[in-house]
Amino acid sequence: MEREPTLRLRIFDLNCWAIRYLSKRRQERVRHIGDTLCQEGFDLVLLQEVWSEQDYSDLKGKLAGCYPFSHYFRSGVIGSGLCIFSRFPILDTLLYQYSLNGYPYMLQHGDWFCGKSVGLPGSRAGVGVGVTAPLLSCSLQLHAEYCRDKDAYLPHRLVQAWELAQFIRHTSKAADVVLLGGDLNMHPEDVGIRLLRGWTGLRDAFAEATHFEGCKNGCTLVPDNCFTNKSEMLPFPLGIRIDYILYKAISSFTVKCEELKTTTGPAPGVDIPFSDHEAVMATLHIQRQEQPAGATLGTADLALADVVTEARTEVGVGLRAAQRQRYSWGRMAVLALLLLLLQATAALGTLAGLGTEQPFPKLSFCLLAFLALGVLILATGLHLFHTMEVKMLHGTEDQMRMALQALQEHP
Amino acid sequence: MEREPTLRLRIFDLNCWAIRYLSKRRQERVRHIGDTLCQEGFDLVLLQEVWSEQDYSDLKGKLAGCYPFSHYFRSGVIGSGLCIFSRFPILDTLLYQYSLNGYPYMLQHGDWFCGKSVGLPGSRAGVGVGVTAPLLSCSLQLHAEYCRDKDAYLPHRLVQAWELAQFIRHTSKAADVVLLGGDLNMHPEDVGIRLLRGWTGLRDAFAEATHFEGCKNGCTLVPDNCFTNKSEMLPFPLGIRIDYILYKAISSFTVKCEELKTTTGPAPGVDIPFSDHEAVMATLHIQRQEQPAGATLGTADLALADVVTEARTEVGVGLRAAQRQRYSWGRMAVLALLLLLLQATAALGTLAGLGTEQPFPKLSFCLLAFLALGVLILATGLHLFHTMEVKMLHGTEDQMRMALQALQEHP
Repeated sequence: MEREPTLRLRIFDLNCWAIRYLSKRRQERVRHIGDTLCQEGFDLVLLQEVWSEQDYSDLKGKLAGCYPFSHYFRSGVIGSGLCIFSRFPILDTLLYQYSLNGYPYMLQHGDWFCGKSVGLPGSRAGVGVGVTAPLLSCSLQLHAEYCRDKDAYLPHRLVQAWELAQFIRHTSKAADVVLLGGDLNMHPEDVGIRLLRGWTGLRDAFAEATHFEGCKNGCTLVPDNCFTNKSEMLPFPLGIRIDYILYKAISSFTVKCEELKTTTGPAPGVDIPFSDHEAVMATLHIQRQEQPAGATLGTADLALADVVTEARTEVGVGLRAAQRQRYSWGRMAVLALLLLLLQATAALGTLAGLGTEQPFPKLSFCLLAFLALGVLILATGLHLFHTMEVKMLHGTEDQMRMALQALQEHP
Repeated sequence: MEREPTLRLRIFDLNCWAIRYLSKRRQERVRHIGDTLCQEGFDLVLLQEVWSEQDYSDLKGKLAGCYPFSHYFRSGVIGSGLCIFSRFPILDTLLYQYSLNGYPYMLQHGDWFCGKSVGLPGSRAGVGVGVTAPLLSCSLQLHAEYCRDKDAYLPHRLVQAWELAQFIRHTSKAADVVLLGGDLNMHPEDVGIRLLRGWTGLRDAFAEATHFEGCKNGCTLVPDNCFTNKSEMLPFPLGIRIDYILYKAISSFTVKCEELKTTTGPAPGVDIPFSDHEAVMATLHIQRQEQPAGATLGTADLALADVVTEARTEVGVGLRAAQRQRYSWGRMAVLALLLLLLQATAALGTLAGLGTEQPFPKLSFCLLAFLALGVLILATGLHLFHTMEVKMLHGTEDQMRMALQALQEHP
């Protein structure tokens, strides 16, 4: 019997840490990334944190010869930072913005302004002669973790992981192969990544790779990197793995990970690494098979139910915190409004000549009124924001409950 | 040859206009809707503008017997207003919030606060004996049109129509039949609805129905309705059709619309109609066919290219307007900042004893500073908001350009 033709797909994934004015030696690094991508000739390049459209345009110009197809995903105030370069035509794109992404008032953790999202380009890769496989590849980034012990953003990240999983489940039916690369900001054993993998059936290229080469345990954030924050890395002397390449075959294809590599600091002859993250590179073998594969889900439904329950509990904790915040800001707004009304009554009273003397000096009176007005506007805004947060967390909890029911009823 | 079994599916769609404290005789109407749904026994009920969760809970309690499965979609500050009741199990849900939905400062047009979205429940309907068809049904509402001649929201509505079309294209591959019901806020000949239908291949139940009964031309917003705004309806003496039931069969199924009905005012024996909109009711025949249907797209690619071009032009107009807004608010913020800096310099100068006399009375000085601060905060907020708007309009224009390329290259 003749062997089915195989497509060897080489993928490059990197969080570029290219923030204008903030990231060290940005332009130099972006040039260096472009040069390397040109030399190496991957099939698919998934980049995150390319915040400046100018950097994207520069890369696009440089890579036009080897990667004729590319797309930059726009969203949020600053942008999504996501872009993709491909040797195969990009037929269609879709951007899904997570419904929750941190808090606008946490300016020091600028996540809210980035419009974190998952960009989904649909492309078609040639498999052998005359055989093509619709390919769905995602570039993405989830909310950052700023403090592992007291992670206030865990519910938001779980909502994002859940929405991402749902998005992949609902959109992947049109493809033969799904690829996902990005900075998930989660350790391999975290509930979010177990949820994502369990609920979609995606496989971790690091775990599946026949051959691995790179930083120990596949870590992508390592203390040796000259750009990482050394004090943040103290609890993790070996580094952590938060950048992933995940994949699955949907219909009559099989995917095997032949090789996974990470960069280990600067390339020979260069004095700086690509970014504060290490790049992840995977070589996948995609082959058509005679018998369509069965559903990848359903093999370990009981374990999956445990993961969904765990995630739902965390989302519930976040929901109650958001409800408390909504209540406090609502109460604050009501108090400010009462103060304003009181002042208005006093002012009207003075105008109507009821009080002969002014109760306060004019200046303090005005300052107090402005202060109350400012608090009223701010508190109302935050009350509305937390109301939306409550709605989204509640909605996610609902969806998870429904998923658990489905898992328990059809084991 | 034996005839394939047929599923007869009866669908009910209604914009309920159930806004707490604002909609007239709301509770009475919701009770009436519930009673009718119980009596009539539809298979699938798609409701919009059920803004109060209490109303949903009341309906759910009342309909538990005849519609055992239901879902309420939560989003935005007020909610999405979307809910669904079904005779068939709802297996999974997904909520997609449009990236653009009006302006938060247009309080009188509360669209922004609603988090307009499309709710997508996946269910499984029994077709004959032992044959089931995964069913994807959407309940949705797009941004309202407040002034047809000078429609400032057209670009936003077009972005929504495009996102909706892309969402359906990407998620519908998993289903055999796609159903979409809702208040699209667009007339049948509008570019947005032509775009949605052309890009997804959805068919209009009104145009396809073998038998029609109801308001003339299938109108769902008619001057005869006692709740409609008579002055707004003056240019349309017959009414307008903005509520639709659309459908398509994906794989080896065919769907035919046997009958379409709209309500025509109050039911006999009742003094008020369900809502300010008329309800739309469709009876569909779903049948498995031997030969899988070809792709519904690609039959009229040239006409489709024209529609996408038209929509892209409108989105471009919106993009330029958004860019102007972003620029004006940015300039305003800079001016306010300059004024504040000037005042700070003057105040410091006075404190340092450079000027012997105070240049302004204290009170006016303080008032001016607060005014400048207020303008600075407001203008910065609006600048950021319009930056996001520009990003999303730009992104949609990009996607449409890509779609046009694909249409022209593969005619």
